[in-house]
Amino acid sequence: MGTTSGQTGRIAVDAMGGDLGPAEVVEAVRLALRQYPGLNPITLVGDRAVLEPLLARVRRRPEQLTIHHASEVVTMDDKPLMALKRKKDSSMVRAIELVKDGQASVVVSCGNTGALMAAGTLRLRTMEGVARPALAAVVPRQNGHFVLIDAGANPDAKPEHLVHNAILGSHYCRVMLGIARPRVGLMTIGTEEGKGNALITETNELLRRTTDLINYAGPIEGFHVFAEHVDVVVCDGFVGNIMIKSWESLVKFFSGMLREELQANPVRAVGALMSKGAFNALRERINPERYGGAPLLGLRGNILKAHGSSNRRAIKSAIHAASQIIRADMNQRIEADIARANDLLAVPVA
Amino acid sequence: MGTTSGQTGRIAVDAMGGDLGPAEVVEAVRLALRQYPGLNPITLVGDRAVLEPLLARVRRRPEQLTIHHASEVVTMDDKPLMALKRKKDSSMVRAIELVKDGQASVVVSCGNTGALMAAGTLRLRTMEGVARPALAAVVPRQNGHFVLIDAGANPDAKPEHLVHNAILGSHYCRVMLGIARPRVGLMTIGTEEGKGNALITETNELLRRTTDLINYAGPIEGFHVFAEHVDVVVCDGFVGNIMIKSWESLVKFFSGMLREELQANPVRAVGALMSKGAFNALRERINPERYGGAPLLGLRGNILKAHGSSNRRAIKSAIHAASQIIRADMNQRIEADIARANDLLAVPVA
Repeated sequence: MGTTSGQTGRIAVDAMGGDLGPAEVVEAVRLALRQYPGLNPITLVGDRAVLEPLLARVRRRPEQLTIHHASEVVTMDDKPLMALKRKKDSSMVRAIELVKDGQASVVVSCGNTGALMAAGTLRLRTMEGVARPALAAVVPRQNGHFVLIDAGANPDAKPEHLVHNAILGSHYCRVMLGIARPRVGLMTIGTEEGKGNALITETNELLRRTTDLINYAGPIEGFHVFAEHVDVVVCDGFVGNIMIKSWESLVKFFSGMLREELQANPVRAVGALMSKGAFNALRERINPERYGGAPLLGLRGNILKAHGSSNRRAIKSAIHAASQIIRADMNQRIEADIARANDLLAVPVA
Repeated sequence: MGTTSGQTGRIAVDAMGGDLGPAEVVEAVRLALRQYPGLNPITLVGDRAVLEPLLARVRRRPEQLTIHHASEVVTMDDKPLMALKRKKDSSMVRAIELVKDGQASVVVSCGNTGALMAAGTLRLRTMEGVARPALAAVVPRQNGHFVLIDAGANPDAKPEHLVHNAILGSHYCRVMLGIARPRVGLMTIGTEEGKGNALITETNELLRRTTDLINYAGPIEGFHVFAEHVDVVVCDGFVGNIMIKSWESLVKFFSGMLREELQANPVRAVGALMSKGAFNALRERINPERYGGAPLLGLRGNILKAHGSSNRRAIKSAIHAASQIIRADMNQRIEADIARANDLLAVPVA
């Protein structure tokens, strides 16, 4: 099959998997078509009987939007592997098959994460030269955003997987954040010589050999993640998943305490009302809806996972991101860099 | 030597290593003596010529406070192993030697972390049955606090090390947070069957065999860390160090954004002034000074590491924590549990 990205340029949208149901997905599609005139064409995958009435009010040219029927839905409670086996006609599986068969380039889904990642990994092969896919996420930091990779796909990573993550993350950063030569940091625990663990020591050595390809800024420790040090944070899927979820938990805890303290007496409450704009602005700045999807990278074709509870705005952002990935020929460029990196890594250390 | 904790009941305080200098440490000692009448006796370790004038205004009975002279100081810029080799008469090294020689039970220091951990690990042996010490930290969460262990001492942990961390952390949680039977969670990436990495799968299996000793609540993922799920979070030193430092970085980033937004226009600024009490209360709730020290556990004797920039209040808290550790006979009780755990782990799985 060779490369798949850009083959058709279509975006396959799983219309059935999100918490808010197909109406929210259709609304997101409508908004995306309106907001982005040059958007890549979309194939909505799901139950035709449900989708057709919803599409009645969506103004579009016929080639912009088609339906691909799928009779089943993978729910949030389905066990990933079981879902793949039992629900072969689910919107999620069918959407991925469209990419596999070359009828679409990217899948957007807010369905069951485990099932989506398993289906993506099992149904789409990895790119030439890549052993394991990685999940990327865009995270706000001081004066901008960074790409975290891997946010959970590959918890038992080897050094060469992390080098591939650096390449995958750099390209995603370029496409999504518009940074031409993103600075890459390797997540570790103190930047002194000999700090970290065995995986990090070896990965650091490999990254130093690929600086032609990767703008490697060196190791980065926890203290600096939300400062303006790097644009791509590379880690294994175990560390990445724990980090990103614990950050979400911390923001929730912090916001909850703040809300509680602001309501503790009437003077504070009036003050809070006056400075309401600040809290809204803060919420907007850390709003994950702006970069609605976390892509599974390193596959022949891309899968953009949006949060299960995504609303129309988040899904619209994910659809837009899918379009940008296709237009930037991201996967072709990644494949070229992976091939060069593998050549460099194959040379024994002098 | 056998156990050391409780041998003398003295607290050796490194008077020279903190960013704010010996005057701040002496002031912390003065406050601790005043606030805690039954405090364990203290040996201040440092330059006698510097310390004696500072002590002039500290009211105490002679047996409550003595000076142990040390002519050198390990600075924040010293390389850990070099410092140990070259600065044999430093306050840090001498304080640890007091524990080694049975003249003190716990060291409190706000000096160079790397040097302190290296000195502790190399000069004090690990407890019977424990292969690697672990760094514990008390972290605020919804409706209380939890103990994170390991926060950075052992980045390449084996499953049995994590079981030991669970025991060390449970005892520290009991002593510091007053929770009789703390719930222990194993940090991982999703609580479904088969999630995590090889280390977690094996550790989970071992912890299930030691439920007589450890109140094991099962795996815990990032989403739940700051909720009220568990009292002790067990992880290896790599993950723990990244988590705790990235949380500090995130709180700083979040607070900075909030401050910026609150000052963005005059109405917000007035509102912020009115609700100032809320921000102060929030700061107090997440104030690390309340639990000034992070102990290095699993050694014959304990080392309490306070932040380099600790002020008198933080150092006072660390001294108080040292006293509580000694009074609770913490190390004797840990040694007994470690022995029982090692017996349980030695039995092959049926």
